[in-house]
Amino acid sequence: MEKTVLLYEGKAKRIYGTEDEQTVWVEYKDSATAFNGEKKAEISGKGRLNNEITSLLFSKLKEHGIESHFISRLSETEQLVKRVKIIPLEVVVRNLAAGSFSKRFGIEEGTPLRKPLVEFYLKDDALGDPLLTEGQIDVLEIADEREVEILKTKALEINKVLITFFKEIGVRLVDFKLEFGTDSEGNIILADEISPDTCRLWDLETNEKLDKDVFRRDLGVLTDAYQIILERLGGQTTCSK
Amino acid sequence: MEKTVLLYEGKAKRIYGTEDEQTVWVEYKDSATAFNGEKKAEISGKGRLNNEITSLLFSKLKEHGIESHFISRLSETEQLVKRVKIIPLEVVVRNLAAGSFSKRFGIEEGTPLRKPLVEFYLKDDALGDPLLTEGQIDVLEIADEREVEILKTKALEINKVLITFFKEIGVRLVDFKLEFGTDSEGNIILADEISPDTCRLWDLETNEKLDKDVFRRDLGVLTDAYQIILERLGGQTTCSK
Repeated sequence: MEKTVLLYEGKAKRIYGTEDEQTVWVEYKDSATAFNGEKKAEISGKGRLNNEITSLLFSKLKEHGIESHFISRLSETEQLVKRVKIIPLEVVVRNLAAGSFSKRFGIEEGTPLRKPLVEFYLKDDALGDPLLTEGQIDVLEIADEREVEILKTKALEINKVLITFFKEIGVRLVDFKLEFGTDSEGNIILADEISPDTCRLWDLETNEKLDKDVFRRDLGVLTDAYQIILERLGGQTTCSK
Repeated sequence: MEKTVLLYEGKAKRIYGTEDEQTVWVEYKDSATAFNGEKKAEISGKGRLNNEITSLLFSKLKEHGIESHFISRLSETEQLVKRVKIIPLEVVVRNLAAGSFSKRFGIEEGTPLRKPLVEFYLKDDALGDPLLTEGQIDVLEIADEREVEILKTKALEINKVLITFFKEIGVRLVDFKLEFGTDSEGNIILADEISPDTCRLWDLETNEKLDKDVFRRDLGVLTDAYQIILERLGGQTTCSK
């Protein structure tokens, strides 16, 4: 398979077409951004790490019956995925208080929540990705009630699998962000990426941050943290290119 | 009945005890605040207007079978109400986009929503009264699922009655904020106030603002706007003191 035209360039990835209408080619970039794009850097090796980690995690989820857009890893920084229409919602799952949640409610980072919490944010950089209630999602016709229920159910299922999986490698899954898309048959499937860019991952023993907070809060070398996650996950997947 | 000790002083009201354990005495103040207390003023006559308008609206709602804490108007600035334990939620109902909703989603003020929207905000000045999703209300144990359902149902019922009522006097009910409390028997009833301090009220023909936005946005004399609302509502209630 060959990549064709550039379809979309986001903050962390480029998406290209392929000769197959239903398949797109994803290239992970080395760009890091935070605070809605206010903080930016090029971090050599970040694209590779996120591509490897996402490929491993999507493969792992598939073993547990959770479908995603992921088809195969192509190279260190590239993967093939199923073409989907992205639902413009960031679906956040929280197991412990951290980040914006801690700030919003004055709850100390690391406080366990009494059950996992699913939140929705509008994917809209110009508006600063605002938190959305289900009522707002409905009134603004961003998604219908059935879709919201599917997103919540899938997000909690994925959380269950990921918590166990990360625990096995000595990592606490604090919170994470998912995106979903609709495929050509109308199925809602997991899309985008799951990586230390989109998760808060703390070492189970030391609480060391092994995620993008290292960049957001200037806590050290980002790729060192991501490399630890990749190594604990068992290293590289095989390359299909 | 006599008032006894001061139980609570808020931004707009003082609450006193009475010799009856289940009854409290409310005094409306002339203080105006906006933007979480950042903008402040003393506006002579405001307390009287809000007391009169709230008394009229709570009486009107009662005629339509909607219970509130309101017992009787005592004087120009005072009323007797049933003692309740306030649920720490601001329940906002929106019929048209305005204020923070317009800003949050980039939707022009005055745009009709395709159906009424109920939102919840945490009553917490220190945190800036953040918007809450139902999931957050649940996880943070602010209210349980049954209570949230009751609040939504009651808020929409009240909206229906108020829309019609305001329409009859040439006023568009854009949005409003309610508070509810639990009485000694465990019933959830409407509490606090309903006034131009807590509603957005626009003249049906001219869209002139007849509410606290006059103060927030320096659009003229606040009490002139509130006086128009009181007069259209039919003026003063009788005084039971």
